[in-house]
Amino acid sequence: MGMNKTGMYPGSFDPLTYGHLDLIDRGSKLFDTLYIAISKNITKDYLFTIDERKEMLEKAIEKYTNVKVVICDKLISTFAKEIKANFLLRGLRAVTDFEYELQMASTNLLLNPEVDTAFMMTKTEYSYFSSSMVKEIARFGGDIAKFVPPYIATEVYEKIKK
Amino acid sequence: MGMNKTGMYPGSFDPLTYGHLDLIDRGSKLFDTLYIAISKNITKDYLFTIDERKEMLEKAIEKYTNVKVVICDKLISTFAKEIKANFLLRGLRAVTDFEYELQMASTNLLLNPEVDTAFMMTKTEYSYFSSSMVKEIARFGGDIAKFVPPYIATEVYEKIKK
Amino acid sequence: MGMNKTGMYPGSFDPLTYGHLDLIDRGSKLFDTLYIAISKNITKDYLFTIDERKEMLEKAIEKYTNVKVVICDKLISTFAKEIKANFLLRGLRAVTDFEYELQMASTNLLLNPEVDTAFMMTKTEYSYFSSSMVKEIARFGGDIAKFVPPYIATEVYEKIKK
Amino acid sequence: MGMNKTGMYPGSFDPLTYGHLDLIDRGSKLFDTLYIAISKNITKDYLFTIDERKEMLEKAIEKYTNVKVVICDKLISTFAKEIKANFLLRGLRAVTDFEYELQMASTNLLLNPEVDTAFMMTKTEYSYFSSSMVKEIARFGGDIAKFVPPYIATEVYEKIKK
Amino acid sequence: MGMNKTGMYPGSFDPLTYGHLDLIDRGSKLFDTLYIAISKNITKDYLFTIDERKEMLEKAIEKYTNVKVVICDKLISTFAKEIKANFLLRGLRAVTDFEYELQMASTNLLLNPEVDTAFMMTKTEYSYFSSSMVKEIARFGGDIAKFVPPYIATEVYEKIKK
Amino acid sequence: MGMNKTGMYPGSFDPLTYGHLDLIDRGSKLFDTLYIAISKNITKDYLFTIDERKEMLEKAIEKYTNVKVVICDKLISTFAKEIKANFLLRGLRAVTDFEYELQMASTNLLLNPEVDTAFMMTKTEYSYFSSSMVKEIARFGGDIAKFVPPYIATEVYEKIKK
Repeated sequence: MGMNKTGMYPGSFDPLTYGHLDLIDRGSKLFDTLYIAISKNITKDYLFTIDERKEMLEKAIEKYTNVKVVICDKLISTFAKEIKANFLLRGLRAVTDFEYELQMASTNLLLNPEVDTAFMMTKTEYSYFSSSMVKEIARFGGDIAKFVPPYIATEVYEKIKK
Repeated sequence: MGMNKTGMYPGSFDPLTYGHLDLIDRGSKLFDTLYIAISKNITKDYLFTIDERKEMLEKAIEKYTNVKVVICDKLISTFAKEIKANFLLRGLRAVTDFEYELQMASTNLLLNPEVDTAFMMTKTEYSYFSSSMVKEIARFGGDIAKFVPPYIATEVYEKIKK
Repeated sequence: MGMNKTGMYPGSFDPLTYGHLDLIDRGSKLFDTLYIAISKNITKDYLFTIDERKEMLEKAIEKYTNVKVVICDKLISTFAKEIKANFLLRGLRAVTDFEYELQMASTNLLLNPEVDTAFMMTKTEYSYFSSSMVKEIARFGGDIAKFVPPYIATEVYEKIKK
Repeated sequence: MGMNKTGMYPGSFDPLTYGHLDLIDRGSKLFDTLYIAISKNITKDYLFTIDERKEMLEKAIEKYTNVKVVICDKLISTFAKEIKANFLLRGLRAVTDFEYELQMASTNLLLNPEVDTAFMMTKTEYSYFSSSMVKEIARFGGDIAKFVPPYIATEVYEKIKK
Repeated sequence: MGMNKTGMYPGSFDPLTYGHLDLIDRGSKLFDTLYIAISKNITKDYLFTIDERKEMLEKAIEKYTNVKVVICDKLISTFAKEIKANFLLRGLRAVTDFEYELQMASTNLLLNPEVDTAFMMTKTEYSYFSSSMVKEIARFGGDIAKFVPPYIATEVYEKIKK
Repeated sequence: MGMNKTGMYPGSFDPLTYGHLDLIDRGSKLFDTLYIAISKNITKDYLFTIDERKEMLEKAIEKYTNVKVVICDKLISTFAKEIKANFLLRGLRAVTDFEYELQMASTNLLLNPEVDTAFMMTKTEYSYFSSSMVKEIARFGGDIAKFVPPYIATEVYEKIKK
């Protein structure tokens, strides 16, 4: 048996979707320990605060013993080093994702050669999901039950009403 | 620490390039054990026999204690199950790769839900390498020293002369 | 002969281009009735008000007996149901379009399985046209006569001067 | 109500998959009449003869009153004109498809301006299906029950054994 | 004024299309001298012999004083060096082209750093043209007058009849 | 020898990266004279003023006798005509670039048929570089020494501190 494999899955999770949950499930099998790192990017507008997103994620991962939620307020490669992650985990849905992810993975490898990136393809049934599409649908009063868990759907509708 | 993570990297390796070697090196860090599975596809024309390809690979991986070379004469998902691999490992170079790989990963997951696929992006300096380009260049008498290790370059030129 | 086929072509049309007009012309042959649905999205900045865009479209479609202009202030799939459209009509220009449109079509089918999406490829001579490019060119004083009908070109220049 | 809308869905159907069946179902709603045109291309190798493929298709479409199977031994645009089809119907799965289909649609429009092409996106659960993948899996003894109807699976295994 | 700029446009030209002619015209303005290099690849099947293709090209470029036709029976980068070309010229039509061309340009730069590659986008009206599509249409008795000059159309039909 | 070939390389250069420098170097060999045209787009937010960007570029091109820096405050095709450029020069990194660049090149050719566009592929080692990624990394305190020359790195950090 080799050294401990630690993965870090960075993202906004604003909000968490069934697509993210699928990746977390599969990533929890690829790594001995998987950190979900919520990015704290002050230049972006989020629907949920970072603490709300952390809480939603923690509720979702209760059943996994090797998954932890952390907040990342640094450059991804710097933060990965700090928490001793050997790998970043990213999902791939589409070609446009692919090129951006290729750029990010190459940049991260250049900035920190000790942190490589592993990718998993989003399952086809989740491939057209995105947090922004969920928010868009909710804003127009559409039904988001097929995209996010019930407790998150409730919170999205409440936030948007305000 | 979780269960043992076993990866299987299927391919033709006809011949092995520096691009493959880079992926093997990085994959050897992602998995506790990594099998390199040379595919035995009777409908394709190869420059090297499957035994020659096995020998070239074995020479290249001598320094890795957790990498093994095997011959795969079955459906990839069936063979992965037999050797108890939990994951397939594949490299991603370009968008055209991406779509084919997405199809393969989805099909394999459907055929055998216990074997997921992990991807790593080919490093940019190897991203335009392919075994067929190496053979094409060698056939026209070009220099392949930048694409394959010296002992493989020698064998490629010898094969092509015949 | 089957049931009545009703299509709905949603878009911003800010402003209408020759590319849109070509799709309307071809869509009017695919469907018994074709609704052009101008989207009312309060989070986006438009050059023309929704009433100005409606007027420009109505002038352009005078010669079609089976094309109507409507304003859509709901989720596209909800609105399509209300006006009894069986199909959405969308144009495809480029690969980047393609992935977004695939996401939209999949989401709409999930939200409302009774409204499918039909696509037509933008004719190659219009494939690089977009409303935003027309506005960009006009802002720099360039000639937009090849992209939009004369009466629209006049209105674009007037709006931009203000 | 407008003129009669007749669609023609050309393909090899070697063999018919659930992906094709989904497109036929959705196309039967887009057109008053839908012809499935099996292409007779002597330069390609098929697993099934054109008569076998016709029989398999006819069995599959029994429940549709507006779908017919025909054999196309000409240029697609010429044949479409002969059977008085106004539109070709094609499925779109991936970006690589997209570019080829864009070329074909443009060429067909140039050869015969009276026959336009309508596209529908393959449902995500079928997006990685292809007839050649089905044959590949069957050749290696894999299970194709998730890709083709039972009576076709039986015929594929029988053909391949020979 | 700088040194003499010499371009080399490699290709099969089997047969020459209006798309190639457009690129030759525009390339003749980018370079002081432009060589059109017909590739002699013994592993590929051509409709026209290399001498027939040379003759067709020479007829087409009569009006250009700075364009010459040559036969390339070596690796492209080796041949470019021999004829003292500083640049290769390639056309880009589509995304699938793009990735292949990026691989070729990178490989050529690695094999011979003195020969860089310049690209021009195929004009949209020619973007779906390809020599193989022309041959396919002709084989089925279709009209190729919009794709190739009249004297070439005649030769294509004659060759195919045989 | 033909007429003088003048290229114009438009861009924001906010800031100049090693990727831009590589293209300038290779473009200086393709054209007799190469203008680097810094675009003055009032609707975009820049880190550096146009004069700062001009100064940074001028320092970088000191060693080239045929490269000049200019400020472009007009439509690119209009400005190219004014400075008597025959060609625009653009770099291609990725598929998403490719489609945008194809649109721009087609539009520019339509607006001004005398100014064609030549492309060069970004070298693979620079293919994931972008000015915005450099700024993003610097904002999070990351090391940008591998992406921009030392004197520019210093200025980026200073600007961001403010």
